[in-house]
Amino acid sequence: MEKRGILLVVSGFSGAGKGTLMKELLHRYDNYALSVSATTRKPREGEVEGREYFFKTREAFEQMIAGDELIEYACYVGNYYGTPRAYVEQQLAGGRDVVLEIEIQGARKVKERFPDTVLLFVSPPDAQELKKRLAHRGTESPEVIESRLARAVEEAEGIEDYDYFVINDDLDTCVEHVHRIVECERSRVSRAKERIYDIREELKVFSK
Amino acid sequence: MEKRGILLVVSGFSGAGKGTLMKELLHRYDNYALSVSATTRKPREGEVEGREYFFKTREAFEQMIAGDELIEYACYVGNYYGTPRAYVEQQLAGGRDVVLEIEIQGARKVKERFPDTVLLFVSPPDAQELKKRLAHRGTESPEVIESRLARAVEEAEGIEDYDYFVINDDLDTCVEHVHRIVECERSRVSRAKERIYDIREELKVFSK
Repeated sequence: MEKRGILLVVSGFSGAGKGTLMKELLHRYDNYALSVSATTRKPREGEVEGREYFFKTREAFEQMIAGDELIEYACYVGNYYGTPRAYVEQQLAGGRDVVLEIEIQGARKVKERFPDTVLLFVSPPDAQELKKRLAHRGTESPEVIESRLARAVEEAEGIEDYDYFVINDDLDTCVEHVHRIVECERSRVSRAKERIYDIREELKVFSK
Repeated sequence: MEKRGILLVVSGFSGAGKGTLMKELLHRYDNYALSVSATTRKPREGEVEGREYFFKTREAFEQMIAGDELIEYACYVGNYYGTPRAYVEQQLAGGRDVVLEIEIQGARKVKERFPDTVLLFVSPPDAQELKKRLAHRGTESPEVIESRLARAVEEAEGIEDYDYFVINDDLDTCVEHVHRIVECERSRVSRAKERIYDIREELKVFSK
């Protein structure tokens, strides 16, 4: 029997490099599957159904909500975004580790539903570096940077709800570290219950 | 300021290879310090004060108990064995990770006192292999092997109190895995509180 995979939620400050980190994680190791969100937002040019998003009508999305087909969902600027349960369940059951990039409210909901989920918060080494990364992203105005910083202050309030706080200073080091966290989580007693049960039963037989 | 070290308790079935594992861990990485127990047992030939044990008179040991100088202690076959608090505290405060080999009752007491302790249970890959290792140890009689197996059955009942269940199949792999567990534990939110606090405060200053 395949061992059940680990559900890994990645959140973090805008500018912390979550996207690149996850892309690199999936590129290097084949134990990961990326969870694809469903949304009612219209596809942008170049976006592919089932790759960037599963594109849904509002009616279809609301049916998914009613049918409890989403692990979590939220509404931003008039559009729904959510995590379809079926794909995540299938991948985990098949022994693959599922990576999910969502913000804190979603992360909390996922942890409620799947208490075994590993919640990971990614941060630049310090606030100075975070500000620099936000500013260097391109042509953003000071106002946009200010509003992102304000959002970062809010996000920082929720870090204690996460399991791991990971510094993304050097991408390569950070990718390896996150992969190791997942590998080590496999040895958690809470995930090794079957193995512990087996060895316990075998021991009882021998000692009779 | 030095980061506080991690307290790692190693328990496991007799024959699981804990001793070799810990020796190799300390040999390969210099972040670890081995906690040395105090005992009222007489030194055996070749045993060195402060290396195998701190040898104490019964009076001295009972004074340590009364003075709350031991993290945990127990009495076996008329002799006291215990973990002196001062050494562990000093090493942790100095940023070193302290490794402690004790059985389950002691492990539970340590976790009560230091909730941040990482409890690790080491096991051979299966009960068959455990039996083989117990038998191959040398010249033990079937009765001794039987009584060790009976003890293993008891020990197995307490595994759920541990944080990690680690299989010692290949020594080299197991040493690396245990070291990685400690490295990953450093990124736990509960251990990164100061860093999280700092980045939060810096962010607030910037966003004003």
